Amino acid sequence: MTLIDKMTGVYPIAPTPFLPDGSIDWASAERLFAFYREIGSDGLTVLGMMGEAPKLEPRESLDLLKCALRHMGDKPVIVGVSAPGFAAMRSLAREAIEQGAAAVMIAPPNTLRTDDQIATYYAQSVEAIGADVPFVIQDYPLVTNVQMTAGVIRRIVTENPSCVMLKAEDWPGLEKITTLRKWQAEGSLRALSIMVANGGLFLDFEMARGADGSNTGYAFPEMLIDVVRLSKVGQRDKAHDLFDAHLPLLRYEQQPGVGLAVRKYVMMKRGILASDAQRKPGSVLGAIARGEVDYLLERLAKTDPRAKV
Amino acid sequence: MTLIDKMTGVYPIAPTPFLPDGSIDWASAERLFAFYREIGSDGLTVLGMMGEAPKLEPRESLDLLKCALRHMGDKPVIVGVSAPGFAAMRSLAREAIEQGAAAVMIAPPNTLRTDDQIATYYAQSVEAIGADVPFVIQDYPLVTNVQMTAGVIRRIVTENPSCVMLKAEDWPGLEKITTLRKWQAEGSLRALSIMVANGGLFLDFEMARGADGSNTGYAFPEMLIDVVRLSKVGQRDKAHDLFDAHLPLLRYEQQPGVGLAVRKYVMMKRGILASDAQRKPGSVLGAIARGEVDYLLERLAKTDPRAKV
Amino acid sequence: MTLIDKMTGVYPIAPTPFLPDGSIDWASAERLFAFYREIGSDGLTVLGMMGEAPKLEPRESLDLLKCALRHMGDKPVIVGVSAPGFAAMRSLAREAIEQGAAAVMIAPPNTLRTDDQIATYYAQSVEAIGADVPFVIQDYPLVTNVQMTAGVIRRIVTENPSCVMLKAEDWPGLEKITTLRKWQAEGSLRALSIMVANGGLFLDFEMARGADGSNTGYAFPEMLIDVVRLSKVGQRDKAHDLFDAHLPLLRYEQQPGVGLAVRKYVMMKRGILASDAQRKPGSVLGAIARGEVDYLLERLAKTDPRAKV
Amino acid sequence: MTLIDKMTGVYPIAPTPFLPDGSIDWASAERLFAFYREIGSDGLTVLGMMGEAPKLEPRESLDLLKCALRHMGDKPVIVGVSAPGFAAMRSLAREAIEQGAAAVMIAPPNTLRTDDQIATYYAQSVEAIGADVPFVIQDYPLVTNVQMTAGVIRRIVTENPSCVMLKAEDWPGLEKITTLRKWQAEGSLRALSIMVANGGLFLDFEMARGADGSNTGYAFPEMLIDVVRLSKVGQRDKAHDLFDAHLPLLRYEQQPGVGLAVRKYVMMKRGILASDAQRKPGSVLGAIARGEVDYLLERLAKTDPRAKV
Repeated sequence: MTLIDKMTGVYPIAPTPFLPDGSIDWASAERLFAFYREIGSDGLTVLGMMGEAPKLEPRESLDLLKCALRHMGDKPVIVGVSAPGFAAMRSLAREAIEQGAAAVMIAPPNTLRTDDQIATYYAQSVEAIGADVPFVIQDYPLVTNVQMTAGVIRRIVTENPSCVMLKAEDWPGLEKITTLRKWQAEGSLRALSIMVANGGLFLDFEMARGADGSNTGYAFPEMLIDVVRLSKVGQRDKAHDLFDAHLPLLRYEQQPGVGLAVRKYVMMKRGILASDAQRKPGSVLGAIARGEVDYLLERLAKTDPRAKV
Repeated sequence: MTLIDKMTGVYPIAPTPFLPDGSIDWASAERLFAFYREIGSDGLTVLGMMGEAPKLEPRESLDLLKCALRHMGDKPVIVGVSAPGFAAMRSLAREAIEQGAAAVMIAPPNTLRTDDQIATYYAQSVEAIGADVPFVIQDYPLVTNVQMTAGVIRRIVTENPSCVMLKAEDWPGLEKITTLRKWQAEGSLRALSIMVANGGLFLDFEMARGADGSNTGYAFPEMLIDVVRLSKVGQRDKAHDLFDAHLPLLRYEQQPGVGLAVRKYVMMKRGILASDAQRKPGSVLGAIARGEVDYLLERLAKTDPRAKV
Repeated sequence: MTLIDKMTGVYPIAPTPFLPDGSIDWASAERLFAFYREIGSDGLTVLGMMGEAPKLEPRESLDLLKCALRHMGDKPVIVGVSAPGFAAMRSLAREAIEQGAAAVMIAPPNTLRTDDQIATYYAQSVEAIGADVPFVIQDYPLVTNVQMTAGVIRRIVTENPSCVMLKAEDWPGLEKITTLRKWQAEGSLRALSIMVANGGLFLDFEMARGADGSNTGYAFPEMLIDVVRLSKVGQRDKAHDLFDAHLPLLRYEQQPGVGLAVRKYVMMKRGILASDAQRKPGSVLGAIARGEVDYLLERLAKTDPRAKV
Repeated sequence: MTLIDKMTGVYPIAPTPFLPDGSIDWASAERLFAFYREIGSDGLTVLGMMGEAPKLEPRESLDLLKCALRHMGDKPVIVGVSAPGFAAMRSLAREAIEQGAAAVMIAPPNTLRTDDQIATYYAQSVEAIGADVPFVIQDYPLVTNVQMTAGVIRRIVTENPSCVMLKAEDWPGLEKITTLRKWQAEGSLRALSIMVANGGLFLDFEMARGADGSNTGYAFPEMLIDVVRLSKVGQRDKAHDLFDAHLPLLRYEQQPGVGLAVRKYVMMKRGILASDAQRKPGSVLGAIARGEVDYLLERLAKTDPRAKV
């Protein structure tokens, strides 16, 4: 549980590379994790929502984790273990920690409604995976359809000492970060890492609100790293300048449903992935959309040369 | 706010009678309210969910209320004022109280999710209608899609002194009644009338759980009155015998969506309503369904002669 | 795919027996499946919603299926394979069929909204499990929150030749059965078994509407068998008499969430299960509720001696 | 029904100005509508979702419409008439048309799920308001929670000749526009105006996809007008340059729930509104958020001098 000191900076959410035939593209996986390490990621998350986790066999999930761990070395790797049943959640969580994962991430099932239901679900999850397994709360109502107030998050954190981080991706979410940090300052909430996500759409302001860093996907994680770094050293204008240059593409990539297709397409153009294929069922980027992304990349490249692909 | 002493017994939920051309059938309305009074109803609710309230013009709503008030005399009449906007809610609530209504009933809009949202909504409603207007919480998640825990109900009741009653129609709902009554016994919840509903589906057990009475519709409100009375005098078996005889029909009438068509059809057969018409858009009972209801009535009539129609 | 001729009569939905420590109670499982066979069940479904399937490890699921197959002999066994990912669904479906299961049952995930999404989901499921695996559509909006019109069901049946049955548990659902049967009479829908469920709440009328039988749980499956049999030989009044006697208890057992606790409690009292335990997380029947069920059993026993426990 | 030829360009969605005491700020309303006319708006929509329509009394709604009509002269004014009941919808629609409104806009209630339910709802709406009243479909699933496929939209348009426009604000929505335009090219869908919205978040690409213009709110409607104009004359890069400069602020304003507070705050800083007050219940912009908006305005002003406030 000492992990909490390390949960800062940028932890990209890794996609799972597939070949057009639907099998895992291990060569791209190796390249992808090496890439994340090289650009200076502080950690990594695999098997998240954008990792197509429910389409993987249990063995594939573990192999992907091992591949990530090999490349990330001493950098923490978080593993998504959200599952419809606690049996599957426990099984993956225990194996992941045994392999060397730093923490697991749990999103609430979309049937939860009341505050009590949400808090109870996390208590039961902890009972299932074991109180010795550090875990991350994923607060992403746009996708999970579960609305957690700041108060519910505080309750979960307080009731479960193994909670080490909040993946904050509510939308809007700025005031929630401010509220949680205020409670910590007042002493009514213990220390907790807050990493922001939701595709990075408000990263430019979230750092000043008190985020420890970013835990999201975007085809240019280098930008996330730069913005987090610039924010931390007080270079506000520079951080916004870079962020704003990427915003048109980032916004395009952040569309629900098709976002992963955009991300994989750009990462393929960047030479990181061999293919932008998704395992079935997946979305495909049409010709017009690809043209739109190409155009956005061209425009971005004028400011950020890394976008020249 | 002295109303609370009176909120006991059976308050039927009144349908709104229409002619086949969609206009209000005032002759049936007079007959209907006279019927409710004659059978010994302790009060009445108009403009509830089953009263087709959103299809009425403001003037029609008020005229229907006045008609009910004339017949019910000193018996309390509750008025449903749920509305998408507080302007409409306030306007109807103030006029209703002025006309002599005893209280208003407010159901939460189906967009509410967290405990805070629900409690805030009721606080805002009270601000809109005025803290001097007694109100009823309608807890009907099957229809509203809003899940209120016992804790949230306690919070609403505690924060709003003008709350005089809970219309309890959660499903399952027996334990919630028990919890609220336990809190009252312990002193952590103030006095509050609890009237049960959900079509009466669990009335046989709800009285023993602590309900003050029933506030629901059913084509034979006399049965509700008898079961409540028998329960109060400790005639448990007799109460169940009568309830069980009605259960096959009651269950048929309690189907979502088509229930009102069943109720109006039976009340038409009983000679209370001239027509089973609903104002558009409404559901219609097909020939097979009418035959099924006729058969259920025949069977019921063997035990309860009031079902001979 | 010749299964369709056999899908008639009563296929109980089996609960999964657990010991108080959370492990599977294999002795009770043997007794349970022997019981289903002895009372004359025409088939069986395991790993359905009420079978606590998501709490089982893959190996446990298969072992439970094998146990059921051993007892049911030549009677068809259907296996619930609903899963959040197609990998898990495929894996269980293929293994189940290999072991001797007659068909698999698929409920739609609660994220589906439009007609196209629903039809596409079933097409993708068939692609995942293989077009040679007979499957059952589970239409249970009260739980899945997915609303399938009769038209969507026809589309799924037409597009997927391996669809052999509809588990019809919409509520209200009588008109949907009538519509589907009318379409079959007109020739716009191919032959398809329709087995009704939703706890049996409308079994008394569903048979006359055209159901082939019942595919639901209830602590007295013998009643379902009797009602189906009596309905088929035209003994309408007798079928209703028996059904009505059970309705107070059946209604109590059909409550969302707590229903399984009621069912297991009664089956424990009947000596079929050694314990009414659910694997965590599960609901527990309080003392008052147990007393209510006991009272309902006493009353039922006056009419149906099988309820003397 | 000749309106369709005119539905092109930019129709801002007007907020309703309030004074801090909650009364309508008529002086600001006059200034606001004059502003929309002066900057070259091609039309206007009042009483939309962002117009706080459900908080207005019927008389206030009509007065606001009249005020807008006076200023817009021969420019079409669309009126939101979404309501929970057809009585209220009809009443407002008929009065609005009588006063000179060009069309009414109808959003589906959030209870609709299946394709049939959605199509039926629009048919019933047309029956309620009259087939002679031109209407606009509002397709905004992020807020309404109703998912309309392109096929359902085609069905509504085909079944209801009085449908004159689609307010397209699905997210993602680019492919839907392309599909509808393709169907029109193929002749399977009649002529229909498509105006895009969702805060303008994809306006830069929507015009090329086939949109006729924009029908949304944003504190700088001049930008929407410029981007639509530049797109129409083929100045793609220039359109994107201007759009991209506004995107950081536009994204900030497009946050669910707090968006209107941002919009009103900016319009107050621009001198268009006297106050950024919302009628209760409304959201308020905190001090940190106001600082963030101020900073975004400063940055924008470097590119677009209209943002100097």
